[in-house]
Amino acid sequence: MSKFKDLKQECYEANMQLNELGLVIYTFGNVSAVDRENGVFAIKPSGVPYEELKPEDIVILDFENNVIEGKMRPSSDTKTHAFLYKNWDEIGGIAHTHATYSVAWAQSQKDIPIFGTTHADHLTEDIPCAAPMRDDLIEGNYEHNTGIQILDCFKEKGLSYKEVPMVLLGNHGPFTWGKNAAKAVYHSKVLEAVAEMAYLTLQINPDAPRLKDSLIKKHYERKHGKDAYYGQK
Amino acid sequence: MSKFKDLKQECYEANMQLNELGLVIYTFGNVSAVDRENGVFAIKPSGVPYEELKPEDIVILDFENNVIEGKMRPSSDTKTHAFLYKNWDEIGGIAHTHATYSVAWAQSQKDIPIFGTTHADHLTEDIPCAAPMRDDLIEGNYEHNTGIQILDCFKEKGLSYKEVPMVLLGNHGPFTWGKNAAKAVYHSKVLEAVAEMAYLTLQINPDAPRLKDSLIKKHYERKHGKDAYYGQK
Amino acid sequence: MSKFKDLKQECYEANMQLNELGLVIYTFGNVSAVDRENGVFAIKPSGVPYEELKPEDIVILDFENNVIEGKMRPSSDTKTHAFLYKNWDEIGGIAHTHATYSVAWAQSQKDIPIFGTTHADHLTEDIPCAAPMRDDLIEGNYEHNTGIQILDCFKEKGLSYKEVPMVLLGNHGPFTWGKNAAKAVYHSKVLEAVAEMAYLTLQINPDAPRLKDSLIKKHYERKHGKDAYYGQK
Amino acid sequence: MSKFKDLKQECYEANMQLNELGLVIYTFGNVSAVDRENGVFAIKPSGVPYEELKPEDIVILDFENNVIEGKMRPSSDTKTHAFLYKNWDEIGGIAHTHATYSVAWAQSQKDIPIFGTTHADHLTEDIPCAAPMRDDLIEGNYEHNTGIQILDCFKEKGLSYKEVPMVLLGNHGPFTWGKNAAKAVYHSKVLEAVAEMAYLTLQINPDAPRLKDSLIKKHYERKHGKDAYYGQK
Repeated sequence: MSKFKDLKQECYEANMQLNELGLVIYTFGNVSAVDRENGVFAIKPSGVPYEELKPEDIVILDFENNVIEGKMRPSSDTKTHAFLYKNWDEIGGIAHTHATYSVAWAQSQKDIPIFGTTHADHLTEDIPCAAPMRDDLIEGNYEHNTGIQILDCFKEKGLSYKEVPMVLLGNHGPFTWGKNAAKAVYHSKVLEAVAEMAYLTLQINPDAPRLKDSLIKKHYERKHGKDAYYGQK
Repeated sequence: MSKFKDLKQECYEANMQLNELGLVIYTFGNVSAVDRENGVFAIKPSGVPYEELKPEDIVILDFENNVIEGKMRPSSDTKTHAFLYKNWDEIGGIAHTHATYSVAWAQSQKDIPIFGTTHADHLTEDIPCAAPMRDDLIEGNYEHNTGIQILDCFKEKGLSYKEVPMVLLGNHGPFTWGKNAAKAVYHSKVLEAVAEMAYLTLQINPDAPRLKDSLIKKHYERKHGKDAYYGQK
Repeated sequence: MSKFKDLKQECYEANMQLNELGLVIYTFGNVSAVDRENGVFAIKPSGVPYEELKPEDIVILDFENNVIEGKMRPSSDTKTHAFLYKNWDEIGGIAHTHATYSVAWAQSQKDIPIFGTTHADHLTEDIPCAAPMRDDLIEGNYEHNTGIQILDCFKEKGLSYKEVPMVLLGNHGPFTWGKNAAKAVYHSKVLEAVAEMAYLTLQINPDAPRLKDSLIKKHYERKHGKDAYYGQK
Repeated sequence: MSKFKDLKQECYEANMQLNELGLVIYTFGNVSAVDRENGVFAIKPSGVPYEELKPEDIVILDFENNVIEGKMRPSSDTKTHAFLYKNWDEIGGIAHTHATYSVAWAQSQKDIPIFGTTHADHLTEDIPCAAPMRDDLIEGNYEHNTGIQILDCFKEKGLSYKEVPMVLLGNHGPFTWGKNAAKAVYHSKVLEAVAEMAYLTLQINPDAPRLKDSLIKKHYERKHGKDAYYGQK
């Protein structure tokens, strides 16, 4: 029996969740889960429809993209996941989707402004949209370079991946992460909801103001601050 | 056995209804139900997913926010509910959601104009959007002050909570109420439908006129007036 | 046993269909079916939720709005149905909804332009929006006068109810009809689909041209002309 | 037993899929599947609701529109399918729908710009919208001429049906194709998703740029190029 059985199961369930939450059609997405102790991560095999996916299909790789276990070809986005796990050592899961409103913002090449408390309950910044990749990077090691593109975006905007668990890749779509695979999927769903609300807000009032700082702080801290009082102890 | 068993059940069912009606994702909402005789209300515990929620998880509090019964931490919005029950003595239930179109209007900081009879069947005024809270109130007893913010909005606009069973909190989202918890949820659903219709109306015709007074009166009175003839006797 | 059992069943099924097709929430709609031979029609009782509705709850009335059979109060829109049956002797069923896109156009007080073949497969004219009612008519016999409002609209625009099986009431919502109750519901669903498509068309291209006459004619005639070749013989 | 049993079954399943994917209401669509060896294709009968459709109802025709097997009248769009099979010898299935966003773009008479990688994963060109047909062609052999209209559009824009598996007919709706009927339906669903994303993109940013060439090439080739690495080997 595989020593990665639990990791595969976690990864499998998170991928299925992506589908149940209406965030993907066909094979347009993937989720991975990491095992830091063993220096490996589990990811969806490439191009397999959700209705056919089984836990044992999940592929195990190390952070250099070597397949450690599994007979199938891993997701075509695998190198992006590996790069993020290697560089950001406090994330436990990563999700990628082509969810409708998230993609629309990515295609618009615009950050999603923080307009309300639904957004502030999860992060205190506009949701960043990374500029499209330079041509030489696209023609090179594309998926690896997608990881670089994300890190560069966070560096340039002065953001921390620990506080901003999501990014839009210009012209492409969202990547989200969290302490485990389920939390990464949760952030994909939250992003899609916030993206839809922000879109509608601008349709109703093109001059809608950004949420004021005191409310951003209040909502984030009641959920994530040291005196947080949201949820059970 | 708890003397509040029925109250908890009412509260539980209304919370589950919020979920079934598509008004919430994850734990983004809460409903409470009041027992005026005993001076207590029942509310959803904080951060518990709907699929895991059980009637016995519901928390019982008095209007000063003291927990009377229940092992779990109540909703983080509890003080807003308590404040409204204390000040408005004819409401029996309160609901709070982050439903998409309702939030979009709240983030736009605009009242929802009364454009048609779907709206007028339920209330005769534009749906009020309370201005975002003052900074000193946000930094203080936030959820309590949210109650004050709602009451101030109604006072300033000259509205009665008996006739206008809903409000949008600027940059946040809707609160709705009714004679019981089920009716509060009903008003959340009606608000979301009216919010979507009003949004679409303005997209089709930015100069769409407000419903004329004679029609507002007619539709409201055939449902709620002394000679109402809508529904069964 | 009621001599109107089949009529009630037809009416019941069409009302349930309205709900299953997503055209109504709660009790926001009603369908009726006529029995020309007996000079009566069957209609949904007022304010009864679809999940509780039973065939025996359906109310039978004559065209003067006298209840012939049934213990419940009929739909508050009953007089509009009666008026249309009385004046338009070739319709067999009528449906009324507050479906989202149909209401949005009604609230915009605009006819829905004929933009494509989905529309032309069903009717060759813009979908008419009747102007809001005059104040004296609203204050009078409102639901009866709603019937007058519809007839006046058709007279003014030179339309035939046999060729245009739907209308929007300004600030209110749609009425649709057909050879029977099921067909009336079908037209409500088609109207909602066409209303959504027309809305999106104008968002993408505010100068989108009306469908040209040759295509209007072609599509309508292949479905409804004397040499129609759509459907089974 | 019919020698076309498998072909009928393939066609039946693809038609049912159209319905399950939410691409059609009522009878607003049709799918066909071809058998090149026998020079015939299978198509949905005209005007039959999906819930009543059975595999044995599927009609078999040759490319001159002669019915080879089947008691029902074939889809009113049959001649368009026959024309495409006759002229494009590498397609195995064709689908036609009135899906909402696809129709909205068709009614807008605009090509769908390639805004992102969801689009580029499937084709490298804007999705073409064929100009509405000339009046003399509409009045002639309409469905046959629809085929001519599609071919003319591809010729005029210099497109290959092997690389662009979809088209919008101005004022009408989409036709899509693929190596078999299931793939044709897949392309209808992808088109609808891309159409919705492109619509939203322009609402958020009317100046959204077209995807740059290097990204178009990269995404298409990783799925379809000679060194493709998407999917299983």
